[in-house]
Amino acid sequence: MSIHSLASQFSTPEMDEAFSPARQLRYMTRFEWALLNALESAGIARQGVAETMEPLLDGTFADLESIMKESRSAGNIAIPFVRRLTSELSRRDENAASFLHFGATSQDVIDTALVLAMRDAFDLIRISMRRLEGLLAQRAREHENTILLGRTWLQAGPPVPLGLKIAGWLATLRRHSSRLAAAEARALVLQFGGAVGTLASLGDKGPAISKEVAKRLDLPEPELPWHAHRDNLAEVAACLGLLVGTLGKIARDISLLMQTEIAEVFEPAGQGQGGSSTMPHKRNPVACAGILAAATRVPGLVATMLGAMTQEHERGLGGWQAEWETLPAIFRLSAAALDFTAEVIDGLEVDRERMLANLEGTRGLVLSEAISAALAVSIGRPRAHALLEAACRRAVEEKRNLRDVLMEMPEVRACLDETDLHRLLDPKNYLGSARIFIDRVLKGDYASR
Amino acid sequence: MSIHSLASQFSTPEMDEAFSPARQLRYMTRFEWALLNALESAGIARQGVAETMEPLLDGTFADLESIMKESRSAGNIAIPFVRRLTSELSRRDENAASFLHFGATSQDVIDTALVLAMRDAFDLIRISMRRLEGLLAQRAREHENTILLGRTWLQAGPPVPLGLKIAGWLATLRRHSSRLAAAEARALVLQFGGAVGTLASLGDKGPAISKEVAKRLDLPEPELPWHAHRDNLAEVAACLGLLVGTLGKIARDISLLMQTEIAEVFEPAGQGQGGSSTMPHKRNPVACAGILAAATRVPGLVATMLGAMTQEHERGLGGWQAEWETLPAIFRLSAAALDFTAEVIDGLEVDRERMLANLEGTRGLVLSEAISAALAVSIGRPRAHALLEAACRRAVEEKRNLRDVLMEMPEVRACLDETDLHRLLDPKNYLGSARIFIDRVLKGDYASR
Amino acid sequence: MSIHSLASQFSTPEMDEAFSPARQLRYMTRFEWALLNALESAGIARQGVAETMEPLLDGTFADLESIMKESRSAGNIAIPFVRRLTSELSRRDENAASFLHFGATSQDVIDTALVLAMRDAFDLIRISMRRLEGLLAQRAREHENTILLGRTWLQAGPPVPLGLKIAGWLATLRRHSSRLAAAEARALVLQFGGAVGTLASLGDKGPAISKEVAKRLDLPEPELPWHAHRDNLAEVAACLGLLVGTLGKIARDISLLMQTEIAEVFEPAGQGQGGSSTMPHKRNPVACAGILAAATRVPGLVATMLGAMTQEHERGLGGWQAEWETLPAIFRLSAAALDFTAEVIDGLEVDRERMLANLEGTRGLVLSEAISAALAVSIGRPRAHALLEAACRRAVEEKRNLRDVLMEMPEVRACLDETDLHRLLDPKNYLGSARIFIDRVLKGDYASR
Amino acid sequence: MSIHSLASQFSTPEMDEAFSPARQLRYMTRFEWALLNALESAGIARQGVAETMEPLLDGTFADLESIMKESRSAGNIAIPFVRRLTSELSRRDENAASFLHFGATSQDVIDTALVLAMRDAFDLIRISMRRLEGLLAQRAREHENTILLGRTWLQAGPPVPLGLKIAGWLATLRRHSSRLAAAEARALVLQFGGAVGTLASLGDKGPAISKEVAKRLDLPEPELPWHAHRDNLAEVAACLGLLVGTLGKIARDISLLMQTEIAEVFEPAGQGQGGSSTMPHKRNPVACAGILAAATRVPGLVATMLGAMTQEHERGLGGWQAEWETLPAIFRLSAAALDFTAEVIDGLEVDRERMLANLEGTRGLVLSEAISAALAVSIGRPRAHALLEAACRRAVEEKRNLRDVLMEMPEVRACLDETDLHRLLDPKNYLGSARIFIDRVLKGDYASR
Repeated sequence: MSIHSLASQFSTPEMDEAFSPARQLRYMTRFEWALLNALESAGIARQGVAETMEPLLDGTFADLESIMKESRSAGNIAIPFVRRLTSELSRRDENAASFLHFGATSQDVIDTALVLAMRDAFDLIRISMRRLEGLLAQRAREHENTILLGRTWLQAGPPVPLGLKIAGWLATLRRHSSRLAAAEARALVLQFGGAVGTLASLGDKGPAISKEVAKRLDLPEPELPWHAHRDNLAEVAACLGLLVGTLGKIARDISLLMQTEIAEVFEPAGQGQGGSSTMPHKRNPVACAGILAAATRVPGLVATMLGAMTQEHERGLGGWQAEWETLPAIFRLSAAALDFTAEVIDGLEVDRERMLANLEGTRGLVLSEAISAALAVSIGRPRAHALLEAACRRAVEEKRNLRDVLMEMPEVRACLDETDLHRLLDPKNYLGSARIFIDRVLKGDYASR
Repeated sequence: MSIHSLASQFSTPEMDEAFSPARQLRYMTRFEWALLNALESAGIARQGVAETMEPLLDGTFADLESIMKESRSAGNIAIPFVRRLTSELSRRDENAASFLHFGATSQDVIDTALVLAMRDAFDLIRISMRRLEGLLAQRAREHENTILLGRTWLQAGPPVPLGLKIAGWLATLRRHSSRLAAAEARALVLQFGGAVGTLASLGDKGPAISKEVAKRLDLPEPELPWHAHRDNLAEVAACLGLLVGTLGKIARDISLLMQTEIAEVFEPAGQGQGGSSTMPHKRNPVACAGILAAATRVPGLVATMLGAMTQEHERGLGGWQAEWETLPAIFRLSAAALDFTAEVIDGLEVDRERMLANLEGTRGLVLSEAISAALAVSIGRPRAHALLEAACRRAVEEKRNLRDVLMEMPEVRACLDETDLHRLLDPKNYLGSARIFIDRVLKGDYASR
Repeated sequence: MSIHSLASQFSTPEMDEAFSPARQLRYMTRFEWALLNALESAGIARQGVAETMEPLLDGTFADLESIMKESRSAGNIAIPFVRRLTSELSRRDENAASFLHFGATSQDVIDTALVLAMRDAFDLIRISMRRLEGLLAQRAREHENTILLGRTWLQAGPPVPLGLKIAGWLATLRRHSSRLAAAEARALVLQFGGAVGTLASLGDKGPAISKEVAKRLDLPEPELPWHAHRDNLAEVAACLGLLVGTLGKIARDISLLMQTEIAEVFEPAGQGQGGSSTMPHKRNPVACAGILAAATRVPGLVATMLGAMTQEHERGLGGWQAEWETLPAIFRLSAAALDFTAEVIDGLEVDRERMLANLEGTRGLVLSEAISAALAVSIGRPRAHALLEAACRRAVEEKRNLRDVLMEMPEVRACLDETDLHRLLDPKNYLGSARIFIDRVLKGDYASR
Repeated sequence: MSIHSLASQFSTPEMDEAFSPARQLRYMTRFEWALLNALESAGIARQGVAETMEPLLDGTFADLESIMKESRSAGNIAIPFVRRLTSELSRRDENAASFLHFGATSQDVIDTALVLAMRDAFDLIRISMRRLEGLLAQRAREHENTILLGRTWLQAGPPVPLGLKIAGWLATLRRHSSRLAAAEARALVLQFGGAVGTLASLGDKGPAISKEVAKRLDLPEPELPWHAHRDNLAEVAACLGLLVGTLGKIARDISLLMQTEIAEVFEPAGQGQGGSSTMPHKRNPVACAGILAAATRVPGLVATMLGAMTQEHERGLGGWQAEWETLPAIFRLSAAALDFTAEVIDGLEVDRERMLANLEGTRGLVLSEAISAALAVSIGRPRAHALLEAACRRAVEEKRNLRDVLMEMPEVRACLDETDLHRLLDPKNYLGSARIFIDRVLKGDYASR
């Protein structure tokens, strides 16, 4: 029961709670209670035994530390847990205790408790995603006319509205919501199969009891037990991995825009936010750092979940155990990254003047395409491209404005006059379909995907 | 243009073809042709230019080796490719050439060509999966009464029908089909955004031209260009990773069952299949080895796709390039693993007698649960469990049959007579809900998930 | 400060302690104390200030929870930690406090504290490895004549001494010890560079102060600060990854040998060790499961450390943070896997009779090579190979002993008589150089590698 | 034998050659020839048979395509290869053929051929690293006085010499050379163990024959065969992974410095280097993109090599096969990244003026630490820190130069006059120990590590 780190960047208190040992024990207890109820309904256990167990439902009867200790040699925590619960129940009603866990195997209890914890975790993720999507939609509309340099290969390119960048993030986030919803629906199902997934010790009452357990826990039943079929869990991991990849992209974009030399967009600054112990003026992108750290860590954890899928026969050896800390870690990192991102988007500071200044700093070069396109109409694309390439090279070498260079080129002057050039070199006239793209996203016409 | 290995275990000829350079060039050419058509329709290019290009549509005009060579310094193959295509087209019609590639960026051509290749690749995967699902359904029915040891933690457990193992594989495979269908629908969309995803050089004609390009290529349009939003590609990778994880589980099960000391199930043996150069009698699980190798390799490749998602700004640096060989490699390994699995399932050899012998070899121990459950009705579960634990220990120590040990225990005899024990220790009477689970899968009632 | 899991399989108490927050705070305090001393020696801080700090050296002055909380917005724990330490020191001696942390940056404190924790961790690993190597050497000698089936591709092959298997594990472990020693020597160095690795705020006294800090902490100095050069840490991760890979191989071998149908070798059974909640007779390979889980998890964590190496400029964003929980996790899993392995080897149970029985169960087939080799002398290898292939096929099909089949083959009888066959088919006569290989390892002549 | 991609960024022609199928077949042939020689020396094969084989040593006798095809069902290429070689040799001398491959197993041939290919590959890597180290040493010296902004968390910090950045890269590269040399020494050893690693079919002549094979191939012998002990190969992968991580860090730094808004350092521009198909003025960091792509891909591949280490018993199933394409891919990506890096460093363009301008653009803020340190002497560090924090905040808010703000602060003026401030705010006076660190690296005093 180790305290794993001093870092608070890699989880949220709520997500820590969802996967806490306390909650895990509570859910394991709830599984056993649901099973006792089902055994009662099926006439296997005496009426009333489940009720006897109810005072224990908060799971606090169990001493974490000793359960942990015993789990090392037992191979899992269910064995010492059931032993403890049995002894606790025996003190109240020996008969009740004798039906405890009947028909189930350790993995049934542990997996179902995991599913119940994931149900809580999915709620947290969903709430965070909705909040983030709402914030992004708001910012995208707000900045549909905020123009900054587009950047490709880390080089300045033609202008884009900030709203388009944000709409791109939003559209991706929505796809992640769809994926997660599908993954959630598949993953949140009961695990109940007994030793080898046949429920054999329940005779012909297996299906009825399983149905009742599922009902008591408000979980759907799967087609068949999934002890060694871990695709649904690995899918959850992968979908969270995809999500965190996008959050990493957002954090990469924002931290690059926060660079001192660019300084167009900033994480919100708060009390003690991002201060440096040695450089009093600095405002470190601490939220972005947290998100990028998550984006660096999650891919390897997803690989672990995929690699753990080759579980042997009816219940595997090593693969199952490899999931125990890995899947919760992915949920924690996802929650932390989501919350950091929402904070950043919520308090995003935007410096429009600096954006304009940076655009102007490129001396018109990033709009060469606009000229090239205009010239192409008259002189064809290859010739236009060649002309602009020459003009740009000269503008770069002589550190002059592209417009001034172009004005000196007769072939250009033959097609375009000063007014044309002025118009073509105004960033707000070279945004193409950006507005339409933003609208598409905000209207959500494609959101069904 | 390196030939990467002597191994043929890691792809199929069809999948190699789908991602071959020849096909890639053909699809890049097709993109440019669709764009020329759209430019014509929009009144930007002169009528007839697209037609002029048609003889080049097979992509063979391009000299692979020199394009490759130039791509190293150009940064991608689209630049030398467009140069080559332009010169080729110029020889036919200079005017046509001047509109080539107009409005597009290198990544538009390369990404759309990738999407078209993936469309072919998905077809191959789908066909293989259908075949495999069909074979599994057939085998599951065929072996619904073929009984073998269940195995957990690599230890013998209560019996299961082979059909249940296979039904478990099948149910998982069906979920993979659902996931892949959703991923396919999201991923197979046009890429067309120009330099920074605004289609700015097309003025206000961007949407119309994009729509026409999409139509010509029979691809849906996305909400907005996805140059730096790679979630759909990473999702494809992840879904294939999930699939290969399950195939690895199947191969693990089968190769374990093929062990000399177990020898219950075998890969089909063919001419030259699995022979050993030093051990003439051996029948190596060569198909399983190929599948397990894929299952070992794909998780790391999926992690790469996830890690590559943090692409900068409008078009990124390094992340995009990291996808180029990785995603095709995942498709190749998936196709190879699918085909190996289908071969194995198709020709699966099953030794029912050996299964029975192995069951009997456990001297009834794996059915202790059956006795325990029966005794529990009379004496409660804890007592029953303790009795059986003692009986099993004795049976193990004295290498005797559990039945004989039980017969000597008065507490057991008080509840169960010889006939009871005989019935309880017959594996076919201890299969619980297995048959029902198999039926559920084969009827596909839950298949909608 | 979350408690991360209920599982105790993934660490040891000692390793948890080495990377505990308490120890981390203690080592951060020690760094600041060493720095104060050095500032004193250099005449920057007033004499006696470091002494004033000494009562705080146990690090308990800091309130973990509030430091954690503040670290989230500060970006790291050093900032709230230094704030707390400053206020604590001020209460004792305001002047002392004013020199605290002078010249250092947050990363200096955190990285050096990590190095000090790693020094403890390496001690633990080294002790465990020596113990394990000792145990393996003992077992290798003990079992140099214990003969079991060799197995390739999970198929039975010619016999090997158990001692050879163990010697192979041992030789590999020794190479890991060499690697870890080299990695340790590189990694255990001071981190001290100030804001951007120039120690600029110390003027020309940087080298002298750095030297003194290093001396006080008993750490070598590096050539230059390594804030953004993380190769040494990633190497430690990789070397542990290699080690755990080998431990996984050992656990795979043992768990396969423990299979009910093979049952040649066993993990030690102890009180509550490997019991099953549903199958009283089972003895689960719980230690192997723990080791295999580690071997499944560590590769992805190593990939994270490698992926985190691309840290920007003088101090990076995201990469550094990605290490914080990852490297300790790798140490924890390594320590747990090492201890599990030592336990298994220490108490390894070996069933020589079963080994013999399994060998006999192959009806001589695994010794076909011996016959083939003997025949080859007379009739050439291709012919001998063909003959044996035929004989083996017949033995398999007719479920007869290879010897009996061979006795009926005139071409064989022409070369070999019954005595020859008997001798050739005795496993202990077909061990080739095994004994020599075992001796080489145990004499350690190659150990210098 | 698929052609895997159109991309030339991910290998070099020489490295492709080292791992080409042609070379692999040549080395497999050489192994068999060495073995024939050894069998001759041992008196097993008739004198002269090895000589008969010599005309085949170039490996061209083998038809790649058919060997590949057969390898799929055989499980590896050695089986069809040996069959082909046998038939080829038989045509020349039937007796010679009969001793071919005697005593060896497929994995002996394939692994030893891999080792021989790696020997070539290590030569290539070593040459590239020496070249790169030489270039870095040269540039570090050349730029020991080239001053630019230090940058931490992507925010501007105190100045550093470009030479210090480069020295940091160089020191790391040297450590990689040490690691690779150690890994090479461990990995380049013969593989020769026969079916199960005992050389049993050679009777008591195993060691002598093994020694002779090793001598003929100029390879050291290992302690014992390493069929299922893959630590040495995985170590090679990990060391290359560490190297590529550092190359990625270099490429990250350079591509960030190339950003349009920073523009301090550039990849060399050549004919067709980094041009954009849509933005004629752009100079894309194409070499950096190639390096970063490698750094994104290699971690996952290293994880595969680590994950593949759990190989079963004497020769494993799936793990071995997972290495076949993975290890060569890591070598290829490493070679490509090394060559890209050398090109970049060789032709590195540096804009000193721009560096100065960017430094000045921070209006003295990055030197606040210098003032803070100077003030601390008089008024203590906390007070000095607080003053500077206030001054910086004001300078930021009012967009003024820090010096002007400080001049207005009486508490500052009490300690420092205008000349002091001027001196303190000159970047070249705030480089601390940078020069000493550079010298340490260039003198290589620490290089022995």
